[in-house]
Amino acid sequence: VERELVQWLERTLPPHPLLRLGIGDDAAILRWAGDGDVVVTTDAITDHVDFRLAAVSPEQIGHKALGVNLSDLAAMAAEPVAAVVSLVLPRRGALELAQGLYRGMLPLAEEFGVAIAGGDTNVWDGPLAISVTAIGRTTSRGALTRGGARPGDSVLVTGALGGSILGRHLAVEPRVREALLLHRQYELTAGMDISDGLALDASRLAAASHCGIALELDVMPISADAERLAQTSGRTPLAHALGDGEDFELLLTAPPDAAAAMAREQPLDVPITLIGQVVDQPGLWSLRAGGSGLAPLEPTGFQH
Amino acid sequence: VERELVQWLERTLPPHPLLRLGIGDDAAILRWAGDGDVVVTTDAITDHVDFRLAAVSPEQIGHKALGVNLSDLAAMAAEPVAAVVSLVLPRRGALELAQGLYRGMLPLAEEFGVAIAGGDTNVWDGPLAISVTAIGRTTSRGALTRGGARPGDSVLVTGALGGSILGRHLAVEPRVREALLLHRQYELTAGMDISDGLALDASRLAAASHCGIALELDVMPISADAERLAQTSGRTPLAHALGDGEDFELLLTAPPDAAAAMAREQPLDVPITLIGQVVDQPGLWSLRAGGSGLAPLEPTGFQH
Repeated sequence: VERELVQWLERTLPPHPLLRLGIGDDAAILRWAGDGDVVVTTDAITDHVDFRLAAVSPEQIGHKALGVNLSDLAAMAAEPVAAVVSLVLPRRGALELAQGLYRGMLPLAEEFGVAIAGGDTNVWDGPLAISVTAIGRTTSRGALTRGGARPGDSVLVTGALGGSILGRHLAVEPRVREALLLHRQYELTAGMDISDGLALDASRLAAASHCGIALELDVMPISADAERLAQTSGRTPLAHALGDGEDFELLLTAPPDAAAAMAREQPLDVPITLIGQVVDQPGLWSLRAGGSGLAPLEPTGFQH
Repeated sequence: VERELVQWLERTLPPHPLLRLGIGDDAAILRWAGDGDVVVTTDAITDHVDFRLAAVSPEQIGHKALGVNLSDLAAMAAEPVAAVVSLVLPRRGALELAQGLYRGMLPLAEEFGVAIAGGDTNVWDGPLAISVTAIGRTTSRGALTRGGARPGDSVLVTGALGGSILGRHLAVEPRVREALLLHRQYELTAGMDISDGLALDASRLAAASHCGIALELDVMPISADAERLAQTSGRTPLAHALGDGEDFELLLTAPPDAAAAMAREQPLDVPITLIGQVVDQPGLWSLRAGGSGLAPLEPTGFQH
């Protein structure tokens, strides 16, 4: 539904003089003379889809609701400023639930300097849904978008991928500081956060940049969670790393020199790994280390 | 729940250097050097509470979802800039429903120059919920808040009140142009939109301004809907005008000279009526026309 709706919206929504970037990236950008453009993103999470209220704490849910939105600001290399929170609460125990959700957001808001600026609270006979809208601003380097990758660029990823269902999907660590540091110190050409799976998200970044991406499967940083999950899932650790989603790591492209410098200098607290190249041929490809030819790679991931 | 939660949040949320005005008004204000501060508000509407999906069209629901948020920007006398939309859709017919919702928003967005900047679309087994976040900017006159009324000010209201359940509660006409015009041409001291009932909302404005409001019940502008509803409801037209809510008219305070000028000049396409005074005594009061004493008035309205 979301993909079809986004395509319909891209055809249907009129342009607007203040809208520098609209639907289709991780966040929208509004022109705003002065302190930087306004970057805005919204993401809702719902019971039984993104978490199970019966199985996790309200604090964990609140953390995730804000975290996924800050991850979208990180994807744009925007500085977080504020968030507004819209709660739709089941009637029973609504106040305690709402307080738990906010308690989960507050430490993350404090860590990233985000003002919880407002909210709306609704009670109904349905399940829990939380929608957060995060507002950031671009730095003097401008925003990082999905559309700037060029053939010949290198592809990089932060952290290690796969198996987030074992816990990281709730304990989102938005890569805000990492994105801002890299965007300030190196030349980046495109970026996004990995929310639906590396393979699917890389294919989206490639499409937005009107080119292709070839991944070197032999060098993929695979998380210990993916290894652990593979022991029982019947899938390989690599398959988990490529397709699991909710890693909330950064997928970046950069000119080869800048990418090599990042990989060599390792300027972050998390690893940053060269995982492939931007190529002329549209689509997603695999590239054996040292090998030459490209083989088609399925864009596995979480389709909404 | 909402009132208790807001009180808890006011105690709990830390201050933030960029947050000029946080939770408790119609919208939040973020300091933003340049083109004016950023004004942001979020409001969700849900099936069976704010509308009945089975009884109204998706277009009507979309119109209302955006309209109530633009009304909150009007309440701050902010210029609308953009909106982001978070949909939580029942699985069956989700795409068509989503398109209908957006189709309902688009004419309103165009009328008020609002960019639909982004969105998030979720599908689940629960009922429909729509959360919209609207972003505006302050004009050179700054924002209009609830907190600036002073004893001696006059109280004004746009339009006519009561009986919105007969249709106006869906066909929200946000008073954006009216608020901007009045804020530019006259001195206003405080304002808000009437969403939960004049009496309740007036008591809130009074509390935010640390004073009281006395309403002249004999001069209240009562809508034809309120008269019609009173024929079967067992309540008076005045009771409907005071307590029904979802009028989405503007409640304003101004120094007596400015208020008299507004009432005399009638600069809007809708009537603007003098309905009372700001007084020293905290609380809500009634004031008979020409009379002297104040009698307590119950702050009737929609309590979430």
